[in-house]
Amino acid sequence: MTTTDIDPPVGAEPGAATASTGASTDSVESDPAHHHGYINDKARYVARLRKIEGQARGLQRMVDEEKYCIDILTQITALTSALRNVGLGLLDDHMRHCVRDAVIAGDEEADAKFKEVADAIARFSR
Amino acid sequence: MTTTDIDPPVGAEPGAATASTGASTDSVESDPAHHHGYINDKARYVARLRKIEGQARGLQRMVDEEKYCIDILTQITALTSALRNVGLGLLDDHMRHCVRDAVIAGDEEADAKFKEVADAIARFSR
Amino acid sequence: MTTTDIDPPVGAEPGAATASTGASTDSVESDPAHHHGYINDKARYVARLRKIEGQARGLQRMVDEEKYCIDILTQITALTSALRNVGLGLLDDHMRHCVRDAVIAGDEEADAKFKEVADAIARFSR
Amino acid sequence: MTTTDIDPPVGAEPGAATASTGASTDSVESDPAHHHGYINDKARYVARLRKIEGQARGLQRMVDEEKYCIDILTQITALTSALRNVGLGLLDDHMRHCVRDAVIAGDEEADAKFKEVADAIARFSR
Repeated sequence: MTTTDIDPPVGAEPGAATASTGASTDSVESDPAHHHGYINDKARYVARLRKIEGQARGLQRMVDEEKYCIDILTQITALTSALRNVGLGLLDDHMRHCVRDAVIAGDEEADAKFKEVADAIARFSR
Repeated sequence: MTTTDIDPPVGAEPGAATASTGASTDSVESDPAHHHGYINDKARYVARLRKIEGQARGLQRMVDEEKYCIDILTQITALTSALRNVGLGLLDDHMRHCVRDAVIAGDEEADAKFKEVADAIARFSR
Repeated sequence: MTTTDIDPPVGAEPGAATASTGASTDSVESDPAHHHGYINDKARYVARLRKIEGQARGLQRMVDEEKYCIDILTQITALTSALRNVGLGLLDDHMRHCVRDAVIAGDEEADAKFKEVADAIARFSR
Repeated sequence: MTTTDIDPPVGAEPGAATASTGASTDSVESDPAHHHGYINDKARYVARLRKIEGQARGLQRMVDEEKYCIDILTQITALTSALRNVGLGLLDDHMRHCVRDAVIAGDEEADAKFKEVADAIARFSR
């Protein structure tokens, strides 16, 4: 339980949302190309995922060194929790940018995005 | 949903359980040292975790190449599912070996193991 | 796994989304009062929850009749899955109506709704 | 998160495990009939499930009174958490009694129980 508290979802910092929202809206207006919500936090997402890669390497070492099963399981739970937080951050950024832009673009775009995000949440929360 | 079906829990293969059970019991009898259930499948666990490490690296590449948020989220869900299957395999092996040995060793050992595994399941299934 | 397939999220039926979206938009325009997304499916949500209440009663009966632990656990899993689908349906309706309306109302309203829904998804997917 | 802390898994109370273990072992010895682990806590399981039934009824009332979607979702999360704790308690009791008895009965019985409980944990933790 404490493991989930170490790393809050990327993008959850106070103020970050407002700042990145502004940036994205600008970019969508001035540039019609794809601009996903997480791009503003790209470096932080990569850093978080690099840490997760390191945790996966640590798990291999634990198995190789024949650590106690329950200790390995605890690390798997921590890794799952870290991944979950990255996913929640991505979802949040996706809604604040891609979904918001689609709502502004019109009903058809919005409906497609709402269906897509609902399906993603269903898979993610399984 | 299909992602969870690709890789069944390590150790879930038919026949594997019985074979490894025998090996573990022998080893516990002839050698009082720690011998965890997953050891018999060590190479497969390491291979599985190496693949998971590769998936974590792939996620960094997706963020770096600014792939679509929902596609990244789908890969996170696949990775979480792969980790979950490793965890379920470890739990299964742990029960078949460590918990079984503790029951045979006596009530006190068994009670400690049952409490420990129940706590681990609670964290894992969160 | 099959249990989750019996009852898709309320509101997931083809065409339902478009229809209810229209209704909600009308009502928001003609009536400034609260009008939540699920209202259009109210009868179906109540029916679904009544069935869940019946499943909870069935669980009491199973315990009372001293059914096998694993069979009770299977029913608990089915009930959790049914609840999860109701939650996913509510989330979907909430985004299609309350979140959409907030985006149209302006950045401040939208930011508050995005934060609220991200927190709800985080709790729900735990 | 706080909701999960209100009701610990049934049977998690200090001392309860040891007491119920003794009772079950006696009963298995003196009576070959099925005697599941949770039976010693039957009244508490029924009380817990009755409360869950009440929560399901409360959810219907919330929908009927057109409460805010996010508030309903919060109650669904609380209900899911309560169910999860009942499931974890059942699993714990099942292992302490049925699985333990199977290990003592012999390898064949134990292997069948280990497979069954691993499958149940896989479904439950989905």
